[in-house]
Amino acid sequence: MDVVHGGDVYRNHVKIDFSVNVNPLGMTGAVKQALQQAVEICDRYPDMAADSLKKAVSRMVKTKEEFLLFGNGASELFMAIIHGMEPEKTVIPVPSFYGYEYAAGAGRGEIIFYETTAEDFSDRMPDVFSVLTEEVQLLFLANPNNPTGRLLSREEMKVILQHCRDLGITVVLDECFIEFCGEDCSMLPETEQFQNLILVRAFTKSFAIPGARLGYLVCSNQELLEKIKRHLPEWNLSVFAQAAGCVCARQTVFIEQTAVYCREERQYLEAGLKRLGIKVFPSEANFLLLYTEHPLYERLLEREILIRSCENFRGLSKGYYRIAVKNRIENDILLKMIGEIIWKE
Amino acid sequence: MDVVHGGDVYRNHVKIDFSVNVNPLGMTGAVKQALQQAVEICDRYPDMAADSLKKAVSRMVKTKEEFLLFGNGASELFMAIIHGMEPEKTVIPVPSFYGYEYAAGAGRGEIIFYETTAEDFSDRMPDVFSVLTEEVQLLFLANPNNPTGRLLSREEMKVILQHCRDLGITVVLDECFIEFCGEDCSMLPETEQFQNLILVRAFTKSFAIPGARLGYLVCSNQELLEKIKRHLPEWNLSVFAQAAGCVCARQTVFIEQTAVYCREERQYLEAGLKRLGIKVFPSEANFLLLYTEHPLYERLLEREILIRSCENFRGLSKGYYRIAVKNRIENDILLKMIGEIIWKE
Repeated sequence: MDVVHGGDVYRNHVKIDFSVNVNPLGMTGAVKQALQQAVEICDRYPDMAADSLKKAVSRMVKTKEEFLLFGNGASELFMAIIHGMEPEKTVIPVPSFYGYEYAAGAGRGEIIFYETTAEDFSDRMPDVFSVLTEEVQLLFLANPNNPTGRLLSREEMKVILQHCRDLGITVVLDECFIEFCGEDCSMLPETEQFQNLILVRAFTKSFAIPGARLGYLVCSNQELLEKIKRHLPEWNLSVFAQAAGCVCARQTVFIEQTAVYCREERQYLEAGLKRLGIKVFPSEANFLLLYTEHPLYERLLEREILIRSCENFRGLSKGYYRIAVKNRIENDILLKMIGEIIWKE
Repeated sequence: MDVVHGGDVYRNHVKIDFSVNVNPLGMTGAVKQALQQAVEICDRYPDMAADSLKKAVSRMVKTKEEFLLFGNGASELFMAIIHGMEPEKTVIPVPSFYGYEYAAGAGRGEIIFYETTAEDFSDRMPDVFSVLTEEVQLLFLANPNNPTGRLLSREEMKVILQHCRDLGITVVLDECFIEFCGEDCSMLPETEQFQNLILVRAFTKSFAIPGARLGYLVCSNQELLEKIKRHLPEWNLSVFAQAAGCVCARQTVFIEQTAVYCREERQYLEAGLKRLGIKVFPSEANFLLLYTEHPLYERLLEREILIRSCENFRGLSKGYYRIAVKNRIENDILLKMIGEIIWKE
């Protein structure tokens, strides 16, 4: 298997995994309990209509039930969007999550990568407008962006959405990490205003349940929703995903606490890394993009710590690494290990 | 939601569900334990390569690992086959599982339904050859067929596969229920010989875990496999599906016991229904297709028993019902209830 993602704890000896960006507070007791209870109903087919889940998430994100569509992870939704829309031209600003390219590659259309340089990472507004022409049907955008951690404001996002609406471009806005930044920048309140907006979210990261697979999208364009839905397999949500999702949707306080916790720990980790002389790009997410000439990935793996080498990200190269913000004990271990590596070299 | 499948225990009060055809022996203790343990690793991404699962299933079905592809249920595989092959013409003999039509409908091609009449159900060999011409790229076939329970022999299946191979038609052979009939008729040993064969199976029915979503296909045509794989989302298998599948793949004795148990109970149920004057079509699977003018579905639902009305199956009409073979106590309750209904009318 080509390593294009983090989290490969199956073929590496790993004690602490900084390569995946899940909630450092871990799975909540309530979610774990819901998953354990779901074992007992695993002999039933899952609810095809996902009624309970739809109700719970609709309340959580304050949107109409009919604007929601659920997927076996956000990755299933990205692919269904491609199959449903069959865009002739898709724009993907890079560096960004490989999943957009993977999904777009399942279609026949052309993919236009809008490359930003390392120094652009800290720009708040990507100058992607030059490639967003009338010939383009689809734009993938992540806010905050992964692996850079750059967060666009609601105003900046509105400018992009308006520009795209004028040109007939649909925007897939991936907000999978936005709960770690607080909800101020979410475009959820704008989904009704922008019919060209497909807002994608997941429970994977914010509730630390990537193993259960559950993502959702919010879109007020019913015609578009029907097209996408037609490419989702029947019974795509397991009883585990549905049970966990129903509980997650009610844990809004936990998510608020998560945002506060992650901000503090990110600042702590960032300061620590900078003290070690490592270049850290500005991030508002629960992960940090670094640049260093020390062979961090290999040296940390020897110590059974996995980080994400960003060498294979489009637009990045050797020396870029992404690390997740974890809890204080783990963050301290990472800083100590990196310190040792740097001093030894 | 349109009711096109059985198992809707979410919008009905149901004490016993005869509408879904899962193993009457239920989930095994070992599978349940594996699912419970999987809760603990749900904070990890599932293994993208599904290494352990692939090894286990490869041993179980005695095929090469590279011939296997896994899906979030067989339903995901059916749709990926359509997206990967983009057939211009697909043949679906009916009545059959609605999922083939649903998957084929996600493509742009034409679907040719080869309709058999009620009296044909008991024919062992469908005379589908007239529509299997050079213009056709894909044939969906289930063995045993659902909802009829008709089982084709290996020799009959070979004739179909050879005919299709000569005309360049790929055959998607759904063997999701074959473990209930014993393995004698499985085409697993022929997958290497027939490059036009995509054999699809699931753990859903044989291990009574429809809630966990896990299906797989066996195909020796690497080029075709790559095309299909490209339309499966990344991380499509949850940690639950993978953990359960690894255990299931080792429980071959349980499956042998299941086949024996289901045969006995099917014969018992069939004899009981016939004594009540109900027309029962010959079945070798773990379910029976019935015909009666009594409003069985409604009357049984009043008694909190769910059966599958087959009114919405293509080629069938009002009065056809499918019931799962369950355990002796449940089967006796069903026979008693049907008896009451018939005597009351």
